[in-house]
Amino acid sequence: MAEEKGKITPQSEDFPQWYQDVVREGDLAEVAKVVKGCMVIKPHGYAIWEKIQADLDRRFKKTGHKNAYFPLLIPKSFITKEAEHVEGFAPELAVVTHAGGKQLPEGEEYVIRPTSETIIGHFFSKWIESYRDLPLLINQWANVMRWELHTRMFLRTTEFLWQEGHTAHATHEEALEEVIRMLNVYGDFAEQMMAMPVIRGLKSESEKFAGAVSTYCIEAMMRDGKALQAGTSHDLGQNFGKAFDVKFQNEEKKVDYVWQTSWGVSTRLVGALVMTHSDDTGLILPPRLAPVQAVVVPIYRKSKERAEVVEAASKLRDDLAAAGVAVELDDREGKRPGEKFYEWERKGVPIRIELGPRDIASGEAMTRLRVAEGKEKMKLETLARDLPGVLESFQGFLLERAKKFREDNTVSVDTWDDFRGVFADGQSKFVWAHWDGTTQTEAAIKEETKATVRCLPIEGQGVDAGPGACIRTGQPSRGRVLFAKSY
Amino acid sequence: MAEEKGKITPQSEDFPQWYQDVVREGDLAEVAKVVKGCMVIKPHGYAIWEKIQADLDRRFKKTGHKNAYFPLLIPKSFITKEAEHVEGFAPELAVVTHAGGKQLPEGEEYVIRPTSETIIGHFFSKWIESYRDLPLLINQWANVMRWELHTRMFLRTTEFLWQEGHTAHATHEEALEEVIRMLNVYGDFAEQMMAMPVIRGLKSESEKFAGAVSTYCIEAMMRDGKALQAGTSHDLGQNFGKAFDVKFQNEEKKVDYVWQTSWGVSTRLVGALVMTHSDDTGLILPPRLAPVQAVVVPIYRKSKERAEVVEAASKLRDDLAAAGVAVELDDREGKRPGEKFYEWERKGVPIRIELGPRDIASGEAMTRLRVAEGKEKMKLETLARDLPGVLESFQGFLLERAKKFREDNTVSVDTWDDFRGVFADGQSKFVWAHWDGTTQTEAAIKEETKATVRCLPIEGQGVDAGPGACIRTGQPSRGRVLFAKSY
Repeated sequence: MAEEKGKITPQSEDFPQWYQDVVREGDLAEVAKVVKGCMVIKPHGYAIWEKIQADLDRRFKKTGHKNAYFPLLIPKSFITKEAEHVEGFAPELAVVTHAGGKQLPEGEEYVIRPTSETIIGHFFSKWIESYRDLPLLINQWANVMRWELHTRMFLRTTEFLWQEGHTAHATHEEALEEVIRMLNVYGDFAEQMMAMPVIRGLKSESEKFAGAVSTYCIEAMMRDGKALQAGTSHDLGQNFGKAFDVKFQNEEKKVDYVWQTSWGVSTRLVGALVMTHSDDTGLILPPRLAPVQAVVVPIYRKSKERAEVVEAASKLRDDLAAAGVAVELDDREGKRPGEKFYEWERKGVPIRIELGPRDIASGEAMTRLRVAEGKEKMKLETLARDLPGVLESFQGFLLERAKKFREDNTVSVDTWDDFRGVFADGQSKFVWAHWDGTTQTEAAIKEETKATVRCLPIEGQGVDAGPGACIRTGQPSRGRVLFAKSY
Repeated sequence: MAEEKGKITPQSEDFPQWYQDVVREGDLAEVAKVVKGCMVIKPHGYAIWEKIQADLDRRFKKTGHKNAYFPLLIPKSFITKEAEHVEGFAPELAVVTHAGGKQLPEGEEYVIRPTSETIIGHFFSKWIESYRDLPLLINQWANVMRWELHTRMFLRTTEFLWQEGHTAHATHEEALEEVIRMLNVYGDFAEQMMAMPVIRGLKSESEKFAGAVSTYCIEAMMRDGKALQAGTSHDLGQNFGKAFDVKFQNEEKKVDYVWQTSWGVSTRLVGALVMTHSDDTGLILPPRLAPVQAVVVPIYRKSKERAEVVEAASKLRDDLAAAGVAVELDDREGKRPGEKFYEWERKGVPIRIELGPRDIASGEAMTRLRVAEGKEKMKLETLARDLPGVLESFQGFLLERAKKFREDNTVSVDTWDDFRGVFADGQSKFVWAHWDGTTQTEAAIKEETKATVRCLPIEGQGVDAGPGACIRTGQPSRGRVLFAKSY
């Protein structure tokens, strides 16, 4: 797809191109080109990631986890120790065969971590001796690499930034509690911070993590009706414990393998944010994750007005900053207000405040939310006091809008014809339908419609429950599962 | 060197072994072994790094820098574009030759970044067109890899974590201002946060960064009298601008290459912290970087005392936390108070608070600073109010102690015999001496004494200035320079 600077293709015309345009015009990232499938995360994009990191890190620490750091390189032999793991990751590995001017001996090559279960398993086996060392609750913020063929900025890149939680427990029950706890940390983060509603559920066998007993996920609807897997939480059972000999002595002095979990979210969340809220004008950011929450643009015609207006605008900026608002004053010369509005809209700033001589005289400023019918006057005297509330209700508005969009694009379907109809012509919705639970049927459905089982919902999400008959085979189904095309 | 769990070798007996023991017993890190020259940064060590990062990041942002992220892999061909750069880094590169199950074509291999001047230069050339785009002030937090033969935890590891600042300017003068600004950010951070006094200066030609016009550094004295380079700030001139074609149009519409800088500090700072303050009991951490600033240890003999004591200790913990102190309550059962004291001392916690039934009755708790003659009583009622001040003065005490240690181990030397004497028998001090400025003499001095020119001091550090005669050759010297053995 060609890149045309300054242009945003309408969403309705070409969604993938729209996405690329919004990311470029919002100055979030660019394709690296010189490094296959990699991107450069530009300052505005990285600032969003920093806000995501800060909030998640707080949630991880609050739930008892501690950060640590393990090597980037993993002995190639480690990857092969867990049979399903190697099968899943072998095709995507980047391999270091030379170092320090020499070829590494056969069998002593390293791979760049695609994920760290193996190397962390190795160290867990050294650190854990008894039940007193458990639970061991570790998180790592790191870069990882998976040599993917088809890449797209933020959504799938050969290198990406993420966090990976790795925990070890004395019982399977405790490990499962952790898996669900972290799934809910992700789900709550998505809804509270990203204003992105998610379905929490269990992956089917064919979509689970390579090496896991089971994988839980949060799935969000993008504005093209497709699903994006925004975070995963894995029950690893004793699979890696056995592969890396991670044993402990329990209270009854019996030796057993530990029960492990792992869970992660990545810079993919930035892509999810873009595709949940943005429009044909560009990026829309929820205030809680916006690096710039408000921009003040001074308006003046004659240069003699400039001093007065910029002074008042500076004062307003200072007041807003003191009230805890992440605010920018755009007093650049040589740019017209209209150009500035345009630029900040593309960057997704939640609210713009315009301030000219007449506003100063009347004691009111014109404000415009990033998604609004028109402008609103706000009293200058109380603006700094009132703005945090305005931003909070904009955060709520975006969540409600995203929920409504998902509701409008979710259907329950009971016949194969209806099911195929939903996914015809490249369309996607969230479809609740019965499935017989077999990998074979799942594959057949995918083959014919490109839709896949996104998850088997966990309880308490208002999903129409109860048994039924598989839409494809008519075989018994224990309950509806979520189907959609996906990223 | 053998590792003996639980033992700390005295500093005076074997300094390198002491260092390794303190790092291990303080639970900061461990040698990875399965990945050459790498370490695992354990939670306590990583928490120190997080504190370092948070404070530096604030300083970088305050000086106008923005964070971004560039690819881990760099096309091998990039490294060769700057002649001195490739000469310096080629022997240390780790090379990716296979990816996605295939061998990469000849000439399309990647190296894992040893530093990012080359790849960032490439993107700067795409981003910069005119003087309006300058200065461009970018920082990156990342992992890098240099395949070193001799490694030591934190001080020199094949992979390490760091930040690298990369900036582009319209004039050499502005670039030089930036180089000194960031040198001072590092110097101020070292003194204010790490309680580690540093000498700020210019590197000699033989010690400058590969590809720089000049390198500035901060040098700190470790407790064995050796110097540790704790941070560097490089004037890159137009070297990388020319290598990567980073041009801009200036205000006079003439096209010129940009003037660049780069600057970095790494996880090495954690090693510097250890070797600046710690003793034969273990780690000593300055309060401003201590993940745990105070620990409350409940003392009770009979189990019926436990409830009362733990309740009072919990209340004290809550009060301290509310006062902004990073506090831990160690109410683990099955461990005697003495064992707990021992463990927290090894972890470098600045102050310990002991609380037993008699203390509660008298309204006073016993406290002990990590470096102190004895214990001090503090009133329970005002303890939370007073402790932040106690911690701040302990921070000041550590800085003064480190300054005094450096003063006591710094000499001005005017004869070759005296110079050799200082560095005899594996000893080191900071030596201010005259040098003729040639690489040849520097090499001869190193050959005979293992001491090197650490830096040519910048002004304002109270160094005995003025010209003299080189201690080795008698040739003219423009001023004394700093000699020491180094890490």
